[in-house]
Amino acid sequence: MLRVGDRLPSIRQLREAHRISAATAVACYLWLERQGYVRARPKSGYFVARTPAPEGPAPGITRRVRGPVSVRVSGLAPAGVEPARGPVIDMGPAAVSPALLPVRRLNRSVRLALSAFSDHAVCYEDPSGSDRLRRQIARLMFLQGVTCTADDVIVTSGSTEALHLALRAITRPGDIVAIESPSCYESLQVLESLHLRALEIPHIRHEGMDFAKLEAAASRHRLAAILTTATCHNPFGDCADDGAKARLVAFATRHAIPIVEGDCFGDLVFVPPRPRSMKAFDTEGIVLHYSSLANHLAPGFNLGWVHPGRWRAQVRHLKSLTNVASARLPQLALAEFLESGALEAHLRDLRAALWRAVEAARNEVLRTFPAGTRVSQPEGGWVLWVQLPESFDGAEVVARAAAEGIIILPGIAFSANGQYRNCIRLACGHPVDVLVPAIRRLATLLV
Amino acid sequence: MLRVGDRLPSIRQLREAHRISAATAVACYLWLERQGYVRARPKSGYFVARTPAPEGPAPGITRRVRGPVSVRVSGLAPAGVEPARGPVIDMGPAAVSPALLPVRRLNRSVRLALSAFSDHAVCYEDPSGSDRLRRQIARLMFLQGVTCTADDVIVTSGSTEALHLALRAITRPGDIVAIESPSCYESLQVLESLHLRALEIPHIRHEGMDFAKLEAAASRHRLAAILTTATCHNPFGDCADDGAKARLVAFATRHAIPIVEGDCFGDLVFVPPRPRSMKAFDTEGIVLHYSSLANHLAPGFNLGWVHPGRWRAQVRHLKSLTNVASARLPQLALAEFLESGALEAHLRDLRAALWRAVEAARNEVLRTFPAGTRVSQPEGGWVLWVQLPESFDGAEVVARAAAEGIIILPGIAFSANGQYRNCIRLACGHPVDVLVPAIRRLATLLV
Repeated sequence: MLRVGDRLPSIRQLREAHRISAATAVACYLWLERQGYVRARPKSGYFVARTPAPEGPAPGITRRVRGPVSVRVSGLAPAGVEPARGPVIDMGPAAVSPALLPVRRLNRSVRLALSAFSDHAVCYEDPSGSDRLRRQIARLMFLQGVTCTADDVIVTSGSTEALHLALRAITRPGDIVAIESPSCYESLQVLESLHLRALEIPHIRHEGMDFAKLEAAASRHRLAAILTTATCHNPFGDCADDGAKARLVAFATRHAIPIVEGDCFGDLVFVPPRPRSMKAFDTEGIVLHYSSLANHLAPGFNLGWVHPGRWRAQVRHLKSLTNVASARLPQLALAEFLESGALEAHLRDLRAALWRAVEAARNEVLRTFPAGTRVSQPEGGWVLWVQLPESFDGAEVVARAAAEGIIILPGIAFSANGQYRNCIRLACGHPVDVLVPAIRRLATLLV
Repeated sequence: MLRVGDRLPSIRQLREAHRISAATAVACYLWLERQGYVRARPKSGYFVARTPAPEGPAPGITRRVRGPVSVRVSGLAPAGVEPARGPVIDMGPAAVSPALLPVRRLNRSVRLALSAFSDHAVCYEDPSGSDRLRRQIARLMFLQGVTCTADDVIVTSGSTEALHLALRAITRPGDIVAIESPSCYESLQVLESLHLRALEIPHIRHEGMDFAKLEAAASRHRLAAILTTATCHNPFGDCADDGAKARLVAFATRHAIPIVEGDCFGDLVFVPPRPRSMKAFDTEGIVLHYSSLANHLAPGFNLGWVHPGRWRAQVRHLKSLTNVASARLPQLALAEFLESGALEAHLRDLRAALWRAVEAARNEVLRTFPAGTRVSQPEGGWVLWVQLPESFDGAEVVARAAAEGIIILPGIAFSANGQYRNCIRLACGHPVDVLVPAIRRLATLLV
């Protein structure tokens, strides 16, 4: 109803129209302001600053299920390139720009950890990780609906290692793993490096894996694992509802097929509350849940974790065989950071910043990309999935962009079957003033 | 000729008898003093403080080569145990006690790195690792006779990860890897976790792998790799000579069989000079060389490296798929430490301390263990290999020791074929006053 620059109803009008308290009315406007939708002008009230992007049709998802295939995606992402001109913006791997991270506060945590543990920072850590850090992780898990203790958690060097260890604990080379279509590039690379075969099951918005197709596949093939991201799917960004999560866990429990659940972005859903993870519905330890604070808090610490359910001993053993233990000092520093409560403040700021970034990027894509382009509508996280018109080849676009110093990923890197030829993924974890010009420039390459 | 308490020739006598300068004579006695063999008494000269342990017969090595086998050693080492009484001494995994490490100097390096890089310590590191650290590693490699640059080196989270990445780059599950008999437990565990088959070739003192038997094995089987520790073998502690190293590299080059060379203890040979690594003889990039500063400098940093020769791209890629990159701050801190020259001072002290510890442990074993016990005579490092009389079962001894809070490893964990039943490995990286009582106590369990 309103356009940019229009004035919003006053607090009094809002109260009266909706029969709410002044506090609630003010809270509404403050919330809109934080998201950047409205702006206050002193003594004049609130004005529309920007409007949400139109929803538009969602990008398509391949519906046909094919047999299990060996994964070959390595090399589909652009390697480090020498840009012909201009600065590089990395919208490839899904890590947030340091400009959005609490760098100084993290450095302070390192100093505090060093003073508190000066004699011990040099010792080997237990393969499971620091006790203090694991207690804090158990607290984070509680906020996702999972009741666990420090003993249930194993600290890893980021989410990639967590996925690696979880898969190695429950599979052998050649085994079949059910994955979503599309699935994130990083996971497919791990499957490839472990010589696992992938069976793609279509992703359904707000449901996750197509349950009927998964059931059919499980009756035809021996599935060694189900790999899924039910909260803030990567690359689509949507969340499966609780019913779908509970159903999948019950199915997996019945058939004794372990679920590997990635939940790295769940704390970054734009609109509270934080969804429960699939692990919250797991009573039998069938879910190996993993997450990480590397991508959106402290990449240099590179710390994540896995709650391996009934495979705890195996995962701990594999961790000790992979690299003994993650470096100790970053663990102590991260524990300090979490104990101080600084994570909550960071997440609040980051959620708002990422929502602004993702919306700005969506707007810009819809405004400047060729007609017929479709773009995902994430509920959290910071990646956008873009389906270009049929005539475009994503890999070609990626190469052209790389030559301009813009790193993005091609759609085919998100499928074991070579689907999504005309798609690209944009990681939007950048300040808006860096992001929007990069997308505008990208648009000029789409000819 | 001399016994403990005897007086040594004076400096003047030494000069005259051997026609050397006073400086050389003094240097000799200072060197003996540093090793703990002699002690100076003011105004009285030098006296014998202790004598080297007798050499005695070396522990036996299985000479018969059997076919390749799947490795099953996991679980052979004692898990974390609740000792019935008394303090725990960990003579199991090969890491040096923190009492022998420059803890304060390392903490200082962390602080310096944090001040110098406060904005960047939080960022992701490149998968290859920090430039600054890699330059320092290239410098260390130069001291082993290897000419390389920072670009040749990939930083890893310790030696286990280095071995892991090297093997994954050149093998597939089921492949056959030639290893030494005995081989270190940690390596066998990695082979097991990667589903590789092991073909044991006898280790020969001062030669490394039995070359004739390796040649014969290579003619019968397709070897995917040769895994060897030619400098300070683990568990024997001896060094292959340059001729043997060169011969093996030439053989591997001719037959295009990659060599994975572990050289973690080479800097800790008791008597200089530091031997050249096998990599020093490699002109074609057939050797994947790995090492680490985790076990004898900074366990909590957990940093090692691999120089993967011609498999650089593959190893870098696998590193990025395993955990993106090793934590950044420990890398910057270690770089600072190495740039300052502090490693050389630490190694000088540590070499002397470890030699003292190993000799004291050898003496105590020969003095207190049952008649017929044989013990290795390491040229460097800090592990002792002990062969008990035939009637003993190493695994039983290990279990009994664990119940007393003494962690050691059984000989069978060092063979893919279940050899070395009556052997044990003692990691002696402890202060002598902690180590000797523990060994004495161990002796009381050998009945």
